[in-house]
Amino acid sequence: MNDPFFHPVSGFELPRFAGVPTFMRLPLVQPGHDRFGDVDVGLIGVPWDSGTTNRPGPRHGPRQMRDASTMIRAQHLLSGVRPFEAMNCADLGDVGPNPADIRDSMDRITAFYRQVVGAGIRPLTAGGDHLTTLPVLRAVAADGPLGLIHFDSHTDLYHSYFNGQMYTHGTPFRRAVEEGLLDPRRMVQIGIRGTQYDGEDLDFAKAEGIRVITIDEFHARGPEDVMTEAREIVGAAPTYVSYDIDFVDPAFAPGTGTPEVGGPNSYQALQVVRGLKGVQIVGADVVEVSPPFDQSGATAYLAVSIMFEMLCVMA
Amino acid sequence: MNDPFFHPVSGFELPRFAGVPTFMRLPLVQPGHDRFGDVDVGLIGVPWDSGTTNRPGPRHGPRQMRDASTMIRAQHLLSGVRPFEAMNCADLGDVGPNPADIRDSMDRITAFYRQVVGAGIRPLTAGGDHLTTLPVLRAVAADGPLGLIHFDSHTDLYHSYFNGQMYTHGTPFRRAVEEGLLDPRRMVQIGIRGTQYDGEDLDFAKAEGIRVITIDEFHARGPEDVMTEAREIVGAAPTYVSYDIDFVDPAFAPGTGTPEVGGPNSYQALQVVRGLKGVQIVGADVVEVSPPFDQSGATAYLAVSIMFEMLCVMA
Amino acid sequence: MNDPFFHPVSGFELPRFAGVPTFMRLPLVQPGHDRFGDVDVGLIGVPWDSGTTNRPGPRHGPRQMRDASTMIRAQHLLSGVRPFEAMNCADLGDVGPNPADIRDSMDRITAFYRQVVGAGIRPLTAGGDHLTTLPVLRAVAADGPLGLIHFDSHTDLYHSYFNGQMYTHGTPFRRAVEEGLLDPRRMVQIGIRGTQYDGEDLDFAKAEGIRVITIDEFHARGPEDVMTEAREIVGAAPTYVSYDIDFVDPAFAPGTGTPEVGGPNSYQALQVVRGLKGVQIVGADVVEVSPPFDQSGATAYLAVSIMFEMLCVMA
Amino acid sequence: MNDPFFHPVSGFELPRFAGVPTFMRLPLVQPGHDRFGDVDVGLIGVPWDSGTTNRPGPRHGPRQMRDASTMIRAQHLLSGVRPFEAMNCADLGDVGPNPADIRDSMDRITAFYRQVVGAGIRPLTAGGDHLTTLPVLRAVAADGPLGLIHFDSHTDLYHSYFNGQMYTHGTPFRRAVEEGLLDPRRMVQIGIRGTQYDGEDLDFAKAEGIRVITIDEFHARGPEDVMTEAREIVGAAPTYVSYDIDFVDPAFAPGTGTPEVGGPNSYQALQVVRGLKGVQIVGADVVEVSPPFDQSGATAYLAVSIMFEMLCVMA
Amino acid sequence: MNDPFFHPVSGFELPRFAGVPTFMRLPLVQPGHDRFGDVDVGLIGVPWDSGTTNRPGPRHGPRQMRDASTMIRAQHLLSGVRPFEAMNCADLGDVGPNPADIRDSMDRITAFYRQVVGAGIRPLTAGGDHLTTLPVLRAVAADGPLGLIHFDSHTDLYHSYFNGQMYTHGTPFRRAVEEGLLDPRRMVQIGIRGTQYDGEDLDFAKAEGIRVITIDEFHARGPEDVMTEAREIVGAAPTYVSYDIDFVDPAFAPGTGTPEVGGPNSYQALQVVRGLKGVQIVGADVVEVSPPFDQSGATAYLAVSIMFEMLCVMA
Amino acid sequence: MNDPFFHPVSGFELPRFAGVPTFMRLPLVQPGHDRFGDVDVGLIGVPWDSGTTNRPGPRHGPRQMRDASTMIRAQHLLSGVRPFEAMNCADLGDVGPNPADIRDSMDRITAFYRQVVGAGIRPLTAGGDHLTTLPVLRAVAADGPLGLIHFDSHTDLYHSYFNGQMYTHGTPFRRAVEEGLLDPRRMVQIGIRGTQYDGEDLDFAKAEGIRVITIDEFHARGPEDVMTEAREIVGAAPTYVSYDIDFVDPAFAPGTGTPEVGGPNSYQALQVVRGLKGVQIVGADVVEVSPPFDQSGATAYLAVSIMFEMLCVMA
Repeated sequence: MNDPFFHPVSGFELPRFAGVPTFMRLPLVQPGHDRFGDVDVGLIGVPWDSGTTNRPGPRHGPRQMRDASTMIRAQHLLSGVRPFEAMNCADLGDVGPNPADIRDSMDRITAFYRQVVGAGIRPLTAGGDHLTTLPVLRAVAADGPLGLIHFDSHTDLYHSYFNGQMYTHGTPFRRAVEEGLLDPRRMVQIGIRGTQYDGEDLDFAKAEGIRVITIDEFHARGPEDVMTEAREIVGAAPTYVSYDIDFVDPAFAPGTGTPEVGGPNSYQALQVVRGLKGVQIVGADVVEVSPPFDQSGATAYLAVSIMFEMLCVMA
Repeated sequence: MNDPFFHPVSGFELPRFAGVPTFMRLPLVQPGHDRFGDVDVGLIGVPWDSGTTNRPGPRHGPRQMRDASTMIRAQHLLSGVRPFEAMNCADLGDVGPNPADIRDSMDRITAFYRQVVGAGIRPLTAGGDHLTTLPVLRAVAADGPLGLIHFDSHTDLYHSYFNGQMYTHGTPFRRAVEEGLLDPRRMVQIGIRGTQYDGEDLDFAKAEGIRVITIDEFHARGPEDVMTEAREIVGAAPTYVSYDIDFVDPAFAPGTGTPEVGGPNSYQALQVVRGLKGVQIVGADVVEVSPPFDQSGATAYLAVSIMFEMLCVMA
Repeated sequence: MNDPFFHPVSGFELPRFAGVPTFMRLPLVQPGHDRFGDVDVGLIGVPWDSGTTNRPGPRHGPRQMRDASTMIRAQHLLSGVRPFEAMNCADLGDVGPNPADIRDSMDRITAFYRQVVGAGIRPLTAGGDHLTTLPVLRAVAADGPLGLIHFDSHTDLYHSYFNGQMYTHGTPFRRAVEEGLLDPRRMVQIGIRGTQYDGEDLDFAKAEGIRVITIDEFHARGPEDVMTEAREIVGAAPTYVSYDIDFVDPAFAPGTGTPEVGGPNSYQALQVVRGLKGVQIVGADVVEVSPPFDQSGATAYLAVSIMFEMLCVMA
Repeated sequence: MNDPFFHPVSGFELPRFAGVPTFMRLPLVQPGHDRFGDVDVGLIGVPWDSGTTNRPGPRHGPRQMRDASTMIRAQHLLSGVRPFEAMNCADLGDVGPNPADIRDSMDRITAFYRQVVGAGIRPLTAGGDHLTTLPVLRAVAADGPLGLIHFDSHTDLYHSYFNGQMYTHGTPFRRAVEEGLLDPRRMVQIGIRGTQYDGEDLDFAKAEGIRVITIDEFHARGPEDVMTEAREIVGAAPTYVSYDIDFVDPAFAPGTGTPEVGGPNSYQALQVVRGLKGVQIVGADVVEVSPPFDQSGATAYLAVSIMFEMLCVMA
Repeated sequence: MNDPFFHPVSGFELPRFAGVPTFMRLPLVQPGHDRFGDVDVGLIGVPWDSGTTNRPGPRHGPRQMRDASTMIRAQHLLSGVRPFEAMNCADLGDVGPNPADIRDSMDRITAFYRQVVGAGIRPLTAGGDHLTTLPVLRAVAADGPLGLIHFDSHTDLYHSYFNGQMYTHGTPFRRAVEEGLLDPRRMVQIGIRGTQYDGEDLDFAKAEGIRVITIDEFHARGPEDVMTEAREIVGAAPTYVSYDIDFVDPAFAPGTGTPEVGGPNSYQALQVVRGLKGVQIVGADVVEVSPPFDQSGATAYLAVSIMFEMLCVMA
Repeated sequence: MNDPFFHPVSGFELPRFAGVPTFMRLPLVQPGHDRFGDVDVGLIGVPWDSGTTNRPGPRHGPRQMRDASTMIRAQHLLSGVRPFEAMNCADLGDVGPNPADIRDSMDRITAFYRQVVGAGIRPLTAGGDHLTTLPVLRAVAADGPLGLIHFDSHTDLYHSYFNGQMYTHGTPFRRAVEEGLLDPRRMVQIGIRGTQYDGEDLDFAKAEGIRVITIDEFHARGPEDVMTEAREIVGAAPTYVSYDIDFVDPAFAPGTGTPEVGGPNSYQALQVVRGLKGVQIVGADVVEVSPPFDQSGATAYLAVSIMFEMLCVMA
């Protein structure tokens, strides 16, 4: 532990705008690299948006998030945690998708994550649209269904779209439950809001025992109370964390394809991650950052700030 | 009721980015259309900003709001209300203004709304600057003064601008009171803030008995308490609702001409509309969306989300 | 002919920023409409970009092009042509794609265009990415291979991408030749430039007898000389015209996914269309307008200006 | 002459981004100032767009043009002319319009310019929409009709808009001819293009003997040849120069309300001004810069570069 | 007092978008002006960003803030304070920096402020990056160390950057304490957050007795409680107020170089200034507004709204 | 030669939006890497803008240029040159500047380039502002003065700024001549335009025998004729090529700090590089790309397209 090889480049040595941008200025350790086996937490990009039914763009997410992430420094202000000393973190590069074939892309993603998981690395993913989570779970949940803490404005529990399309960014958690990758009784979805096609997704949640916390309940109870319940739901067993950036209000995160107004602010966006402390996180992702809808990079900067908070609770 | 002719096109059939954009993907039923008489609530655009004293642009509002509105789905998440089944809703098209003549434009607007009201249709208007409300009220308040719930950062109660200009977007409610279209003792203005020329508007409000709730009071009491008072003020009699998008903080609604910082967030922006439940709404508007100051469409999307909430309380 | 039903709304009656935006303010006459059979030229949107290998967005093209097209007036300044009086033009609406299935989408497009062609309507398409042209040609070239005048910075003649993907926006003309929809000896591609993967596309062109005019030749000879040759290549037989907006230099058309610098300016972009006069055009398209990369609408406005020029030479 | 009081602040003394921005960093000498009578050329802002029939915004033009103008230095590279030493130039401030009353605004403008002309000052105006030119001409042409060299993509010679509106930015030169402010036989309009409502404006031009040079003729002949003819048309008598920024192609000048593609590039935009050398210029303007459509300021910078070229030919 | 010379131009006389923009439309009274001695509060621009270690731009801040400030009117809505009548306020112009020499620039700034302070004028500064505060304090704290209320997301208490650079925007308050310009026991820093290089700055604060209120404490206690403590810390003695715009959440103030998510909203941004009432303010600044990162001007408008609140508590 | 290690990643294998962005998807081979000695041409970023006197930003240039460069493919369309097979090309990373110390930064740059030159690598630099060229030349011209072909809108030959600042982006070539790094009689500057402070730079050029080709001469003669002369001026001896992106018209390259209108278009921007064929290029740079002024990346894409053309003539 605390291996200097895995320390990020400091802004006091090389200004933060300089250098080839890896995630948080960490070393690039792709599969095959001789230090791959020493990585504890791997930051991975999945530049892919073939599951997007409305406004595309998340395929450009990892690039912009790497760029913004060079603004992240080494230490958490409040807790004093220095995650890059507590764990060996590295940028594992991008999984190359096949933009023209959804199933081939999913297979490529799962294969990559099997390598990662096989090497004992916990993956922290920068998407990509939310369909990304499904092929990741196929690798991460190889040993049985996981718990899920899911931040989002949508349940992504729909059965299908457009005459039976089973694999879109509106269906990954339905599939994951059906495939036995997630345990519905250990699932909680937080921040759900916006208009609906119908109640088919909520009916499924109810039938399976998935806990849905709407934005109204979230605002009424506050982040800390909600996260206490979330921790209880997933318990001590292995849990995956999935964070759709559209959980956050679009004023704070405009760069996304399906925004819904009335969401949490950026402070609450961080608070809920701090509330993950104690959860046994076996993998996590931040998805749906869509650079074409926020060229300023503000959304990406919020996303990587969330990733840094995740690292601190994983440390 | 629940006439399929009046159902919006579903995003499961035609993707939400496709098709000629009408308000909320409703049928276009302009005066003269054979289903005009069957409409319960009519969504109307007034692309006009001749009353604007500072930064122009609301003439482009209806176009951008129609575009954003194709993101709206069929059902309210919390209440389960499906307004397009509860009422026959339709896009009635735009009132064509005369950009070079304020009085001619006002006459055109009033004439259009007389047709609407005459057909028993409740109008839900997408402005246009706030002067729009005056000619609308001339039609809607034909049977006597109405109550008013008015969300805004400005009172729009000034006597005149620039050496006696009586018709600007800073004067409509002064005129409406003078013309007997509104009952000042059944008027409430919520969210008032920003710097002032002087206190002339507040003096008028006080003299007439108009209730002004400043943003400080709003933040101190919260949306629910404020809306309880608002409902009491207007009572059970017919009431008009006017929503200036600059009521909302400019971080959430940058696309407007006279922003004032320190306003409500987007969740509160929706909450106040939900607080209208039970009010006898005879007409409503959302005004001052100015696309040149927010090409991203985020402001327009918030505005149509507000319109959807209005439909749910009108249902 | 010169049927008032098919006249666009004048900006002298209704300001150009007002009204529900159809293409060029023409009537919306979708299949099934009782005037469908009277249409001579149909303007059609194909909001689809599943063939895009790099930066997505053209699925939003038709919406933005309709918006910009309300700036188009009735008469060509130089020729005096009034296309909307010379031919019955109408907006036929959008073909609804299936964003998650390329082949299903292509079938839907072909089916729609068969209706159009079957009704004797010449289609003028607003894409969509360039793969759009393939399913359109499957309908339009039903009676045998067509000639092609193709403006682009890329040949779109590649065999496949990413391990054998045959249907992307880089392959439509290869497929169309293979399927017998185009006669390679009556094909000309104008404006080709940018860096290349390799010469595989040019080798195919050479082998098949497709004439490729690079941007260097274009700039050296000028638009008029080039278009004289183009007319000779296609001759008097039926010809399709396909215009990728990335033919134009990105300073004039930034809103596209695969820009290449060093292209024609906007005047030359129009000149080449005027050079189509005399060609027997059985269908035409303008594709690859990607609104997320140009929210200002300037690219869309150029695209619809090109469509207007096309109408004038089709009249 | 060469009075240091009238020298602009040098960027070698105070960086060009510093200081309260006056036009070209010249002294602010409003009417009443004790050096007003010593001014030779006065730069005046007219922040007004009430004549705009489509996209508003030029009311913000002078502010943005002053900002951009602090990038202008003291000397012309080619000719070596130093206009601020050759003539006493000053910023005369803005004419305050009445945004809600077209006729009152026109009267205010004319009154201001009468003061200017009365003091022997030649006005160089930063608009404002093109209707601005009419009230300016009412002051400048007090001694009889002037010649006009007019750069634009539109003739602005229409009779009226919207049921008889006589004063819009599409009518100023029709009115000016009717009012005897311009001699139609000494008028030339350069760069005319775009689609037309009808030919009513060109018919008027033809009937009155106004020379219209379309963009096609302009591109075919080139700026020098065209300007030679322009100088012959206006001859040696007093002449006004009016430059609508939409003369230039929108890739170079996107910040305007009624762009037309296919125009001159920025080099030609300057060349035509250099071609004014020898003309007896009694006043000039650059109009239709609309900052909401180009927040980058590039259009404004081009506009003030044109104004600098104008100063050099007036010197 | 209440001298009409020092009244801002009213928007009822001259529209707010018109005129050469001085701060809040106040008279420009630079040193040497005959009314300089009558000024009570001087608004000063320092267009300088040589201390910026990451994203530059604040050199353009004063220009954009002047532009936005013409939206500010004369009276505070709640308190009714009319600061421009209570005190003689004026725009004192910009201090001209030397962009290529940090020490020379600091000397120029200090010299300018000595003139200001020497004339009995309280300075209200529009920066500029945060290093600006150091040379200002060298003039303002001439009579002994001041108290400091400091709003920021960073402590700016670092010892040095990049191998010993002592003067950057991350070090001004360290230097000011070392130079005896500030009394550390009368210093409070509010809003501190974001990732850290290390804890060196907080160690210094602790050692010197500087009170640091992190954003978590701020959100937990609320603005009023925090400001009560802040007033107690500085007590009745002379105090300087320094407001880094990155104190505010970047959704409300995106135009800054080192944003940190999770900050206060715009209402809280104003509330804390109102909480300064009673403090003996001898000078204040608002710094780090960086126009290249917010061309919309929203950040600048928030910044000048904060300046107006400051004027009201200084009145 | 043609070593697969030095081949860029193909877009057919990994989509062009995927992966950590190095220049043109080349391997990252920083000093110390075991293949450093095998590099023929090294692409180097210098993220530095301390010499900027007006609008800052080029410190962000290399990051954005790397991002855009992943759009570049392997082969030149016209010549068929495949530079990455003809030479071993690599990304050598960024030189870390000291943003707060000009001289220290220059020393760091020179030291880095001495390593590069010492290893027999020809440097191709992505700036950075134009002062970058001076410390680069101190390394590259170690063996005696070089010839220079310089594309720019400014001569950058000024003596000093702001009371004697000798090192700014307006002075590098004056210094380089004085230091004997360049042979003035083998220097040519192309594209010079814009307003001037005075003629001091041109006087120096004339006195030293530096050939200055203004933009007027450039437009009159055309790129090919101008480049023929340029090649004659530098002859067969070692020559450096410096390309300021503001050489190109700002419509094509808006992302720069000191734009000048009236420049070449993007095709001419490439043509002049092709005209370097045969020149003995010992180093080259593209400077002054300023991302804050063009977040779209279009300027950066043009810049890297120019770099690709440079590689083709260096091959």
